[in-house]
Amino acid sequence: MTDVRTFVTDHRTDLLADLDAWLRIPGISAQPEHRADVERSAQWLAEAFQRTGFPTVEIWPTAGMPAVYAEWPASDASDDTPTVLVYGHHDVQPVDPIELWRTDPFLPTIDGQVLRARGASDDKGQLLFHLLGARAHLAATGRTSPAVNLKFLIEGEEESGSPHFQRLLEEHSARLSCDAVVVTDTGMIAEDVPSAVTGMRGLVVATVKFHGPDLDLHSGSFGGAVPNPATAIARLAGALHDEQGHVLVPGFYDDVRALSHEEQQLIARVPFGEADFLATSQSRALAGEAGYSTLERLGARPTAEVNGIGGGYQGEGGKTIVPSDAFVKLSFRLVADQRPAAIQRAVEDFVEARVPAGITHSIEWEGDGVAPCVVGIDTPAFGALSRAILAAFDAEVVLPTREGGSGPEAALEQALGVPLVFLGVGLPDDQIHAPNEKVTLSMLFKGAEAAAHLWQEFAAIGRAGLKG
Amino acid sequence: MTDVRTFVTDHRTDLLADLDAWLRIPGISAQPEHRADVERSAQWLAEAFQRTGFPTVEIWPTAGMPAVYAEWPASDASDDTPTVLVYGHHDVQPVDPIELWRTDPFLPTIDGQVLRARGASDDKGQLLFHLLGARAHLAATGRTSPAVNLKFLIEGEEESGSPHFQRLLEEHSARLSCDAVVVTDTGMIAEDVPSAVTGMRGLVVATVKFHGPDLDLHSGSFGGAVPNPATAIARLAGALHDEQGHVLVPGFYDDVRALSHEEQQLIARVPFGEADFLATSQSRALAGEAGYSTLERLGARPTAEVNGIGGGYQGEGGKTIVPSDAFVKLSFRLVADQRPAAIQRAVEDFVEARVPAGITHSIEWEGDGVAPCVVGIDTPAFGALSRAILAAFDAEVVLPTREGGSGPEAALEQALGVPLVFLGVGLPDDQIHAPNEKVTLSMLFKGAEAAAHLWQEFAAIGRAGLKG
Repeated sequence: MTDVRTFVTDHRTDLLADLDAWLRIPGISAQPEHRADVERSAQWLAEAFQRTGFPTVEIWPTAGMPAVYAEWPASDASDDTPTVLVYGHHDVQPVDPIELWRTDPFLPTIDGQVLRARGASDDKGQLLFHLLGARAHLAATGRTSPAVNLKFLIEGEEESGSPHFQRLLEEHSARLSCDAVVVTDTGMIAEDVPSAVTGMRGLVVATVKFHGPDLDLHSGSFGGAVPNPATAIARLAGALHDEQGHVLVPGFYDDVRALSHEEQQLIARVPFGEADFLATSQSRALAGEAGYSTLERLGARPTAEVNGIGGGYQGEGGKTIVPSDAFVKLSFRLVADQRPAAIQRAVEDFVEARVPAGITHSIEWEGDGVAPCVVGIDTPAFGALSRAILAAFDAEVVLPTREGGSGPEAALEQALGVPLVFLGVGLPDDQIHAPNEKVTLSMLFKGAEAAAHLWQEFAAIGRAGLKG
Repeated sequence: MTDVRTFVTDHRTDLLADLDAWLRIPGISAQPEHRADVERSAQWLAEAFQRTGFPTVEIWPTAGMPAVYAEWPASDASDDTPTVLVYGHHDVQPVDPIELWRTDPFLPTIDGQVLRARGASDDKGQLLFHLLGARAHLAATGRTSPAVNLKFLIEGEEESGSPHFQRLLEEHSARLSCDAVVVTDTGMIAEDVPSAVTGMRGLVVATVKFHGPDLDLHSGSFGGAVPNPATAIARLAGALHDEQGHVLVPGFYDDVRALSHEEQQLIARVPFGEADFLATSQSRALAGEAGYSTLERLGARPTAEVNGIGGGYQGEGGKTIVPSDAFVKLSFRLVADQRPAAIQRAVEDFVEARVPAGITHSIEWEGDGVAPCVVGIDTPAFGALSRAILAAFDAEVVLPTREGGSGPEAALEQALGVPLVFLGVGLPDDQIHAPNEKVTLSMLFKGAEAAAHLWQEFAAIGRAGLKG
């Protein structure tokens, strides 16, 4: 018998060795040429669950990339033993612009407390702390199986919009039944400010393509007399916002749940330094929707973002053409009560109204989108999470925060009908989705401790207690 | 002794063999990695001039890509023997989007009357007809040197905006002195509608870059709270025109010389079919500045064109980032009395007014730009050109046309102070600057005939006659 902290400290190198092996697999779900890598990534994770002791481990195929499911019941389970489902994802983001990486994104490198690689923080590092956490839980309790019925559902398409996740939940609804969901794909405010996310934004992602003349034309012989799809796509993307940063898609704000005065005050109390935020973002200025603070813009307001734009000549110098094609990649973050399908329809109407004569267009959505999700902070599950974080970080969970990012959490919540909490240890400067993604190792070790404590906390509350 | 047509017909294969060899050299002046190819292209052309019999052939270096100069004086020259300078260019446009080429752009392929390769029409094919034309001129007149003092100046940077051409003209002003300039880099209305260009638009070309955050950011964690350079560049490009196609750069139209009623009527008489133009452009609709016909838009009105736009994620599917960088490549065609420097200043002001807080920007111009140029149709030089075209095409020059494209002709006209005529045999469907550029072989052979006749016509007029 040992305590959680000692066990985690003594077994840090296990976590690092696993992380090093897994991060070398470039499982980029958005790029079809990486399909085999995503499959290898799932395979690796399944074997890691087996090594840890999970008696049931399965790879669940989907119409897209495979998910990994693992189950470890409490051998002494009673009717009041809670079943907990941990959600995360094993796929990673693309790596371009590759030239901005200072190290190979798939060759993990450790520099002091920082481990750099694509997926280090989002989400491989955060999943692997759970394996160490489960072992620490057993070691500290002297048990041979967890004190709760533990289930893990680790999907393989989160970074490409979870297009088949809803179907996966429906297909396996009996296996996935549980009393609480722990989402492990988020972060905290700072290393010394433990916090927990209580809401995530929804997301719809589209590629809009405009096609003009069937070939690139000489701009002297044809320019000014035929429609230019690059100009048209620029006019479209440029029309998304007004001068005050409001999104101009008609109906975009119709369903948005406004922040209550109390919520505004809670957000205002979050220790948030604009200077730190600017330093982390490496931006020269703040921007956004007029009338809202930066934290409100990030967590509580919907946005429209141009993720990529292209068309025509991309090389050095000039090339005097009217391009044949142009595209823009758009994403929209949604907040409470906005529905992805309604926003998709509104965006389609907005685009269609801006296609000039002589231009043909297409809109391709990444799946059905992701609904927004809001968590109550007065639930027993949130209380258990807070105590587990306190035990690991030796500090109170300062404040609940709203996460600006998006995941399939709303789908989980709706499909399973149970409370959901967020245990995530990413930091704002982890540069997830960007070049030089990193994770801070001490946060992973704290995460392992918090997970170990969390199973004890859930067991102590019991199924009946979790229902509140 | 033979006649021009017989000689040209008997020696077609010489022209085709030369063209095949030269077109294999990818002399793309806008791409620094092709510097050695542009140099090889100049070397090849110099040797071709020597083979043809030109006694003086030189390669003229510039601060950029080299030009080729060749000279063949009339051995029996008198004070009244005219000196004629032919202008063209040996460099070619880039070839992307390479995937749209049906054949290798640098492996010339002949299909019936069509020869396909980058540079086939613009401008290598049109230069090589002059070598055959010079030989036909000698054969038909029984001379061993031309009836005029022939000079050729073939630059190597026309496709990248002729950034060092002005300097080249100044440096070699004595060698280049002449009584008329023949520009061979334009086209005719149709194969059976011989025509001659009487004006070319000017051109300024810029790359505008916007830089936002120093790295690509997660759009969930940062989107909506920092400035997005892709959105900003789209807003800039989208603000170039109003709904009626007018350019919104303040001052853009200030110096434009309006078309006279007579000029409008001349343009209206040009046999121009909108259906043919749409078929050639492979566009689904006409577009452009309200209040002007398509031919007026192409020849007599200035334009602003987006030649390329880029920034952020360019791959398959979605990537939810706020990009760090974005750019737009812009070109502006200028008409009579507009000055490149004034337009550059106006565009810089327009851009600077649209750079949001937190975005840094740069504007890079391709050289000093090209001034517009207008040719008088009542000059003796234009009369000589018309008769030479009639002799070659067995048809009257139907009408003078205004070319929408741009070249360094205005610089030539200003530096040399002599009349300028355009002998060009490109066709509207040559797809110059685009994938699958082609030239129609019969047009090249007619061009060779016209050139052979033109030297006789100039000699018949004499120096004094050319002054009018």
